[in-house]
Amino acid sequence: MVSVAQVLQPVEADLEVLLGNLRNLIGAGHPLLQAAAEHLFQAGGKKLRPALVLMLARAVGGGQPPDQRQRRLAEITEMIHTASLVHDDLVDEASIRRGVATVHSLFNPRMAVLAGDFLFAQASWHLANLDNLKVVQLLSQVIMDLAEGEVRQGLNRYDSRQTMEDYLEKSYRKTASLMANSAQAVGVLAALPEHQLDSLYRFGRQLGMIFQVVDDCLDFTASDQQLGKPAASDLRAGYLTAPAIFALEEDPHLAERVERQFTEPGDLEAALTAVRQGSGLERTRALAYSFCQDAKAALAWLPASEEKAALLDLPDVVLRRLNEC
Amino acid sequence: MVSVAQVLQPVEADLEVLLGNLRNLIGAGHPLLQAAAEHLFQAGGKKLRPALVLMLARAVGGGQPPDQRQRRLAEITEMIHTASLVHDDLVDEASIRRGVATVHSLFNPRMAVLAGDFLFAQASWHLANLDNLKVVQLLSQVIMDLAEGEVRQGLNRYDSRQTMEDYLEKSYRKTASLMANSAQAVGVLAALPEHQLDSLYRFGRQLGMIFQVVDDCLDFTASDQQLGKPAASDLRAGYLTAPAIFALEEDPHLAERVERQFTEPGDLEAALTAVRQGSGLERTRALAYSFCQDAKAALAWLPASEEKAALLDLPDVVLRRLNEC
Repeated sequence: MVSVAQVLQPVEADLEVLLGNLRNLIGAGHPLLQAAAEHLFQAGGKKLRPALVLMLARAVGGGQPPDQRQRRLAEITEMIHTASLVHDDLVDEASIRRGVATVHSLFNPRMAVLAGDFLFAQASWHLANLDNLKVVQLLSQVIMDLAEGEVRQGLNRYDSRQTMEDYLEKSYRKTASLMANSAQAVGVLAALPEHQLDSLYRFGRQLGMIFQVVDDCLDFTASDQQLGKPAASDLRAGYLTAPAIFALEEDPHLAERVERQFTEPGDLEAALTAVRQGSGLERTRALAYSFCQDAKAALAWLPASEEKAALLDLPDVVLRRLNEC
Repeated sequence: MVSVAQVLQPVEADLEVLLGNLRNLIGAGHPLLQAAAEHLFQAGGKKLRPALVLMLARAVGGGQPPDQRQRRLAEITEMIHTASLVHDDLVDEASIRRGVATVHSLFNPRMAVLAGDFLFAQASWHLANLDNLKVVQLLSQVIMDLAEGEVRQGLNRYDSRQTMEDYLEKSYRKTASLMANSAQAVGVLAALPEHQLDSLYRFGRQLGMIFQVVDDCLDFTASDQQLGKPAASDLRAGYLTAPAIFALEEDPHLAERVERQFTEPGDLEAALTAVRQGSGLERTRALAYSFCQDAKAALAWLPASEEKAALLDLPDVVLRRLNEC
């Protein structure tokens, strides 16, 4: 089976250009931000969001390289994503991400506020200057979803009554909305008909959901080293994800442990055991598989191309991380 | 001479509606943000930015009440302004503003990041849904100017080489851009011709500059109680404003004191004396007067109305604060 690098190969050169542009846009003339920008845009990460935009742009454009506006859209998705990471890490007090120190811990909290605001502002400005009101509306919805998702996540910490529906909605807002709406925006810029826009949205949405669900499984199954951050950090911080919500249905004692915020000795260990030995992880995997089928079906109408093949591999590649940890 | 309350009388009822809308938009369904929203939108303040939008909307609309889009624009200006205050106070570590505790000091820094992001996101969403691309572009420029202004202000702390031009540019970005671009946006929504849009922009810009310049004088002349925060806090924190920049031309020792960040005994006191006893304050006042003349000239073309009279009084009322402290 193909690797992530192989899947992204059709847009590898595009992504190199994008990285250079992002560093120039953010760092230019601002020594204060230069260091943060270098740090942010070199800190690994698959650039999955801009890669999705660029790949879709090639696939709907009959193999033509993405035009200036599609490239700018790809940059905007990465700016929005990075801005929200910088602020989320600050709000969640996370000191490490993908094995690298977060901005507020490497520099300081003031810098993290400034860098995040600056990235959001740049994204807003470039977005408005794409000169397409529909695209502005799609991406402003993403910015709203990210902020709402972060607020709700904060509200629901250690709340054992939250449902799978709450979890799916939060995951949509925090992860899938950006992929869904930017995938649709690619179609808007290419002037595609409404039903094709819907299917691009659907592909982006389900890919985003797989991504989140897989991440939430890995938090329970992977090691600190594989994750680049402490394992089980979601549960520890009171963020209940799909495996934990399924486990709450099975273990009658889990709710109390959560509600008392794992303060009694052995609470966290017992909770981890409940998740790892129950059917929660298996049921979460099944959820991811169903998103995967749905994502691939959404792109059936696309004409055959190297990029279409890569897009159809993408959900599987994301899903496969489940088996690697 | 008229008071601020008298000048704002034509939009008093509009501002009441706006405050209710803002509280509902921000607080609804988010207990976490409810308290912050209540705090933010009750914490005094003249609501000068939405008042300007509403007054201009009435003046260009032949006395008709502002329509839904003009009202929404007014709300957006207040959301953007409030979001930037919340984050600026956090970045500048200010614990008090207008005599009231800032969000990060009353609640905590995480809450301030969330509340500011949420307000920016709401503003972006409502802006995109005004369905006018030109207005989106004007206001996204404001968001960019605010972020750039805050970054530059951070860069230039304790830098004695900054010029009056640097100061004016920073003041434009941090204060005047919002008033200038939202004033122009009122005209765009009313479908006014280009030369009238330019004059609305000019009025908003010069009014914003007066506002900033007056604030910067008061920092040196008013008491802690009058300011609702410690006097001379700008200079102390290394933010050089017009009076200090003029004083740097006159006092050969001031630059060293600034550069060593007022660390030697008596530095800050000597710097304050240099500003207060030199011609810096007088020259700053003259600058404000010239903005005032220019602002009023910009509105000459407006047909006579109660609202036009109020708009022409506004620069004088802002300027008069200089004589009250």
